[in-house]
Amino acid sequence: MWAPYISKSLWVESSVTMPRYKLTIEYDGAPYQGWQWQDHGPSVQGAVEAAGSKLNSAPVTVYGSGRTDSGVHALGQIAHMDLDKDIRQDKVRDALNFHLGQHPISILDAELVDNEWHARFDAIERRYLYRILDRRPRLALDRGRVWRLPVKLDVDAMQDAANVLIGKHDFSTFRDTQCQAKSPVKTLDEILVLRAGAEVHCHFRARSFLHKQVRSLVGSLAEVGMGKWDAEDMQAALESRDRRECGPVAPPDGLYLTQVIYPENLESLEG
Amino acid sequence: MWAPYISKSLWVESSVTMPRYKLTIEYDGAPYQGWQWQDHGPSVQGAVEAAGSKLNSAPVTVYGSGRTDSGVHALGQIAHMDLDKDIRQDKVRDALNFHLGQHPISILDAELVDNEWHARFDAIERRYLYRILDRRPRLALDRGRVWRLPVKLDVDAMQDAANVLIGKHDFSTFRDTQCQAKSPVKTLDEILVLRAGAEVHCHFRARSFLHKQVRSLVGSLAEVGMGKWDAEDMQAALESRDRRECGPVAPPDGLYLTQVIYPENLESLEG
Repeated sequence: MWAPYISKSLWVESSVTMPRYKLTIEYDGAPYQGWQWQDHGPSVQGAVEAAGSKLNSAPVTVYGSGRTDSGVHALGQIAHMDLDKDIRQDKVRDALNFHLGQHPISILDAELVDNEWHARFDAIERRYLYRILDRRPRLALDRGRVWRLPVKLDVDAMQDAANVLIGKHDFSTFRDTQCQAKSPVKTLDEILVLRAGAEVHCHFRARSFLHKQVRSLVGSLAEVGMGKWDAEDMQAALESRDRRECGPVAPPDGLYLTQVIYPENLESLEG
Repeated sequence: MWAPYISKSLWVESSVTMPRYKLTIEYDGAPYQGWQWQDHGPSVQGAVEAAGSKLNSAPVTVYGSGRTDSGVHALGQIAHMDLDKDIRQDKVRDALNFHLGQHPISILDAELVDNEWHARFDAIERRYLYRILDRRPRLALDRGRVWRLPVKLDVDAMQDAANVLIGKHDFSTFRDTQCQAKSPVKTLDEILVLRAGAEVHCHFRARSFLHKQVRSLVGSLAEVGMGKWDAEDMQAALESRDRRECGPVAPPDGLYLTQVIYPENLESLEG
C-alpha cells in the first residue's frame, strides 16, 4: 500500500502550501442579501465561492474584509481564498469572471499573497462613498445607484456637522439595533462632504464600522443638509447614545465600499 | 343650435393658443427601440406621449430634437408638446414623471415656450458623450452604461486622430447604410478625448449628426486608441467616403445625448 501513503503525504504537504489569492471585487449589491451567506437569498460571497469552486477539486471558502448589507455596492471589496493548485493570478481573475456568468460581480484583480495573509484580520482601514443626488425629478439612469433627495442640500452645513463625528466616540445612536459588535465605540478618521457635479458625495474612512453606521450617519447628515438639523443637533444625537435620536437611515442604493487598506498599501498611499 | 357653434369657435381659438412645453428628458435607452415610435417595440417618445396624454383631453404628440438609436441614453434630450389647457410648468414636469410609472425616463424640466418654438427645427447644436472603460475585467456596476475595451487606450493618439475629423467633411465612411439624410456632408465642431478617472470620455459637438455617426467615429477612434490605426489611417478612412473603411461600430451602451443647444442658450453659454 505504498501509493496511498505517498499520496496522503503529498496531500498534507500541499495543504500547507496551498496558494492564497487576494481578490479585489466590484459588485452591484441590488440582487443580493449582502456580502455574506444567508439562508433566505443570494449572497455575493456565495456567488464567488461557487465560481472559485470550479477552479478547485473541493469547494472553496471566500473570506471577505467585512460584510456589506443587502443592496450595498462595492467598487473594491477585498477577499481571499485558497486553491489546491497553483494557477497564474491573471488566469484566476479571468476564470472567476467567466464562471460568475450573469452575476453583476467582477473580479478586478487576483493576487498571490502569503499563506498567513487575511482579508479581514489584516485590514487596517475601510473606505466608503455615499452618493446623493439632490434633485426633484425622479431617477432614470442612476436608479439603485444613488439616493435621491428632492431638495438642494447645504453641503457646507453637512461638513460642519460631520466634523462633530470625527474621532473616537460611542456611536450607539448610529448603529443598527441588530449590530453584533461588542462595543459601540469606534474611531472615525475622516468624513468629507463634497459636491461632485450634480451629486453630493460623502466619503468615510475608519478602521472599521458598526452595522449600518454609514447609512445612519448619512441619514442624519441629510437632515442637516435639508436644514432640519444643525451641527449642535448632530452633537446632541451623538451624545445621547440613543438609537431613537438617529435621523432616518439612508437607503443602501447610494452606498459603496470603495477601498480596504492593508499595511502593505500604506507605502504607496504615502508616496 | 347656438351652443355647438360657440363651442367650435372656442375650440378653434384655444387651439391657436394651446400652451407649448419644452421638455428636458433623461432616459436609460436600454429597454427601448430608440427615441422614435417603432412598430416592433417600445420607444421613449411613445412612453412620454402616453404620459402627456393623461394631462390632456386628446392624445398628445411629442416632438424630439432628434432620434436616438436603440439602446442610446440621454441626459438632456429636448422635446416639445402642446397641451389644451394651461398647467403650471412644475406641475407638468411632476405629473409626467408620475404617469411615466416604471419607465426609466425622467422629465428633468418642463418650460412654457412660444407657440412657434420647435425642439427639432430650432436646435443649433447637439452634444454627445461616449463613455469607454478600458479594463480587462468585465463590468459589474456599469453594465449597459459604458463600452468596455479590454486594453488600455492611448488617449493622446485618439485626440490626434479626432482632430482630422473636425470641420466640414463628407462623412460617408461614418454613417449607417440605412441613414436617410440627403447629404453625407456635416460639420463637426469639436471632439474632445479625455481620461476621466478610470474611463475615457469622447465629447462631440455638431449642429447635427448622421445616423450612427458618433458610434462609427468612436469605433474608429478606439482602433487608434488600441494602436491598430493612427491619424493617417483615420484621414484615409474619411477620404475614402466608403462605409467599408469604417472601424467596428461602437455599441449604444456608452452613448449619451447630453445637451441640445438653442439660440436662446447661447447667451448663457458665452457668459
